[in-house]
Amino acid sequence: MKRTTLTFLYICSVAVLAVVMLYVLKAGKGLETGIMNTGLPARKQMVQSAESAFSHPLAIFILQLTLIIAASQLFGHLFKKIGQPTVMGEIVAGILLGPSLLGAVLPDFSSFIFPASSLGNLQMLSQVGLILFMFVIGMELDTQMLKQKARTALFIAHFSIVLPFILGIALSYYLYSAYAPANIPFYAFSLFTGIALSITAFPVLARIIRERGLSGTKLGIMAITAAAAGDVAAWCIMAFIVAIVKAGSISSSVYTIVFAVVYVLFMIFVVGPLLKRLASYRNDRSILKRSYMAVIFVVLLVSSYCCEVIGIHALFGAFLAGVIMPAEWNFRKLLIDKIEDVALVLLLPLFFVFTGLRTQIGLLSDVSLWGTCLLIILVAVAGKFGGSTIAARITGENMQDSLSIGALMNTRGLVELVVLNIGYDLKIITAQMFTMMVIMALVTTFMTNPSIDLINKIYAKKQGL
Amino acid sequence: MKRTTLTFLYICSVAVLAVVMLYVLKAGKGLETGIMNTGLPARKQMVQSAESAFSHPLAIFILQLTLIIAASQLFGHLFKKIGQPTVMGEIVAGILLGPSLLGAVLPDFSSFIFPASSLGNLQMLSQVGLILFMFVIGMELDTQMLKQKARTALFIAHFSIVLPFILGIALSYYLYSAYAPANIPFYAFSLFTGIALSITAFPVLARIIRERGLSGTKLGIMAITAAAAGDVAAWCIMAFIVAIVKAGSISSSVYTIVFAVVYVLFMIFVVGPLLKRLASYRNDRSILKRSYMAVIFVVLLVSSYCCEVIGIHALFGAFLAGVIMPAEWNFRKLLIDKIEDVALVLLLPLFFVFTGLRTQIGLLSDVSLWGTCLLIILVAVAGKFGGSTIAARITGENMQDSLSIGALMNTRGLVELVVLNIGYDLKIITAQMFTMMVIMALVTTFMTNPSIDLINKIYAKKQGL
Repeated sequence: MKRTTLTFLYICSVAVLAVVMLYVLKAGKGLETGIMNTGLPARKQMVQSAESAFSHPLAIFILQLTLIIAASQLFGHLFKKIGQPTVMGEIVAGILLGPSLLGAVLPDFSSFIFPASSLGNLQMLSQVGLILFMFVIGMELDTQMLKQKARTALFIAHFSIVLPFILGIALSYYLYSAYAPANIPFYAFSLFTGIALSITAFPVLARIIRERGLSGTKLGIMAITAAAAGDVAAWCIMAFIVAIVKAGSISSSVYTIVFAVVYVLFMIFVVGPLLKRLASYRNDRSILKRSYMAVIFVVLLVSSYCCEVIGIHALFGAFLAGVIMPAEWNFRKLLIDKIEDVALVLLLPLFFVFTGLRTQIGLLSDVSLWGTCLLIILVAVAGKFGGSTIAARITGENMQDSLSIGALMNTRGLVELVVLNIGYDLKIITAQMFTMMVIMALVTTFMTNPSIDLINKIYAKKQGL
Repeated sequence: MKRTTLTFLYICSVAVLAVVMLYVLKAGKGLETGIMNTGLPARKQMVQSAESAFSHPLAIFILQLTLIIAASQLFGHLFKKIGQPTVMGEIVAGILLGPSLLGAVLPDFSSFIFPASSLGNLQMLSQVGLILFMFVIGMELDTQMLKQKARTALFIAHFSIVLPFILGIALSYYLYSAYAPANIPFYAFSLFTGIALSITAFPVLARIIRERGLSGTKLGIMAITAAAAGDVAAWCIMAFIVAIVKAGSISSSVYTIVFAVVYVLFMIFVVGPLLKRLASYRNDRSILKRSYMAVIFVVLLVSSYCCEVIGIHALFGAFLAGVIMPAEWNFRKLLIDKIEDVALVLLLPLFFVFTGLRTQIGLLSDVSLWGTCLLIILVAVAGKFGGSTIAARITGENMQDSLSIGALMNTRGLVELVVLNIGYDLKIITAQMFTMMVIMALVTTFMTNPSIDLINKIYAKKQGL
């Protein structure tokens, strides 16, 4: 059919549509009952609806996401420029968006963009982000490497937990009366302080080592293996502490711990091999089928759910699910590729902001509080930096490498924030204590790169002499 | 250092830890004030905490996700076996998890797993899923192909909207008194019914055409191009309707429409070229950098936010953001790969379940309601199937191909569900009408494959004679 005919028919059809529409709309007007005349107030109504459009939950949520992504990217790049890991910039962006800066400087804007009613959504989504993140951390854990380097790495990992743990428990004795919430027993507060000082951020460490070009070196492998082993140990202790606090007393946590052990064994010896068999069925090894992704998501979610219900934290289940994923071909790499970007770019910054919204630096209003904060930082550094250095020295490393391992293991990064949030949710620590610990986590992570530079400089000078 | 020495030191350090821990814990006990003795009731407390662990918001949310993913995968596979597109199975799974089946058969379990308090989260996350999904649809739209095949495809696309739109408006005249909510003006109800009958599900259609092996054929290309052009037109009309309903009257929607047009032009002529330039800077074309992902997420979110605030729907902004993404190298493919799996496996099923929770087949309690439902289905099929067939015939296709195009364009799939949810949210239609329209969407999508088989069979017979 010719072009003109087609155009003619097209115009005709639209014309018919217009006529029918106008006719029916006019006829239908008579059917309306009980509709208020919106003649004059229409304009006003529009202004109102425009106002409510700005503060519609979905609009607010989209705005939050936008602001959070933009801020965390901006600060991530800035921090990279000054020689800090990107993730530190993202964490700082989250804290600045909270009451510590945005809330203090622009209170109206802050309460508009982070209304109390929106925090539930933010928390839930940031939990989803954390579950995916812990899953990725679990997958990045190279259990083969752990087995090979077992002896020295395990020793460093565990010894570097023991010292800060002891110091943390001792410290908690002085902090308990002032910084523990009412009704929280001493053992809970004490154990939590201990573990909070002992954390090493395995993922941040991995990135620092990669960025410094230490990946292939003996030092890099030693530090990363020790951090990985330490991560496993720390999460087990953390699960144990959560179990005790949730069960109400040490003795009644026995059930939880028994369940947890059974669950871990079940995952390792039943689910793991099943997934491995499933993975080996695959023919095309360059893609992951969507149904396979669904199976993996279900395993991840069921694992998180079981751990949450058993009474150790959902994140432990996500971590464990990552650990048991098949290490065949490039299965893990494909899976990490699929999850990492959405989880890390879109969801993880939500967690930093959520943490930032809880971190109120304004709470540290007098000098004595800042003194306590400094004390916490000193004890944390002494315990972890010192403990790791001593452990490395005992295993026979030279002094420079031992100090470097100490500096690396002192990186607390965002794993510490995860632990602190769990403690705060369980009401083991107060908002003040939470803020101080967040500052400690930031300071110890900031220290890492400058400390290593300093150590290298000192030893370069010595060799030069 | 020797292995035995290391082991010895390790044991010593753990022993020291144990001693210090016990000592401090004992000493710290004295610091506790106001803590209730939890001797005997500990067991009871544990049972309580176990109960609350099951219904903790995070636990419930994880459980919901698990159930939803498992159910949608199961039904997706079942439907594929009986020759229906996978996505239909996922939609049906969502509806079965709602009050229509799960709520009716296991009301206790249903209210445990979908408590009213959790619906807000579910909705927000399903909106995020839809935003990502509409973004992917926008990216899958091949604007080059649209330009080439413009004339005939555009004619079919628009003519196949005009006929069902007219029929829908006529139908709405009979439905208005019984099925429009109080206070909704006739024109809103009428226009919405019109557009709801005119939708073609571009993504479902694309999959059906791929699954039937029609991708390269003239018929397949014609249908997919017409559906894409129809999609654009339908979303523009939908944005127009939302603008009118939100602004309160046709005349006061002028501002909204002007803003919307300015916004669309800005996206196409400013943001699009900027992104294209950004994309051309890239050297390594096999990966997308994380910062680039962030820029794209921000564009997507800002676009959605602007459209939501302007008064056309956020999803239109997401669609538009997808359309303006650079088509260079395999940029879109990489982006789709990154987003698709998390969005489609994890988040989109949430939308189906959210739709299912609103679809109450129990509301259609008497025969006359089912009669109305049947009428809606008949009018929808007559309008879309008939309209597309006539349009294709006019452009010079033979009868078999015209009928096939009609059958394909009649697929409403999940785009219809998106439109229906928007209408329901804006309170343009009642819950009864919503349910009937959902049934219509399901029936018309189910019809597609059998209809084409039937058409092919009839013409095969004819040729055989």
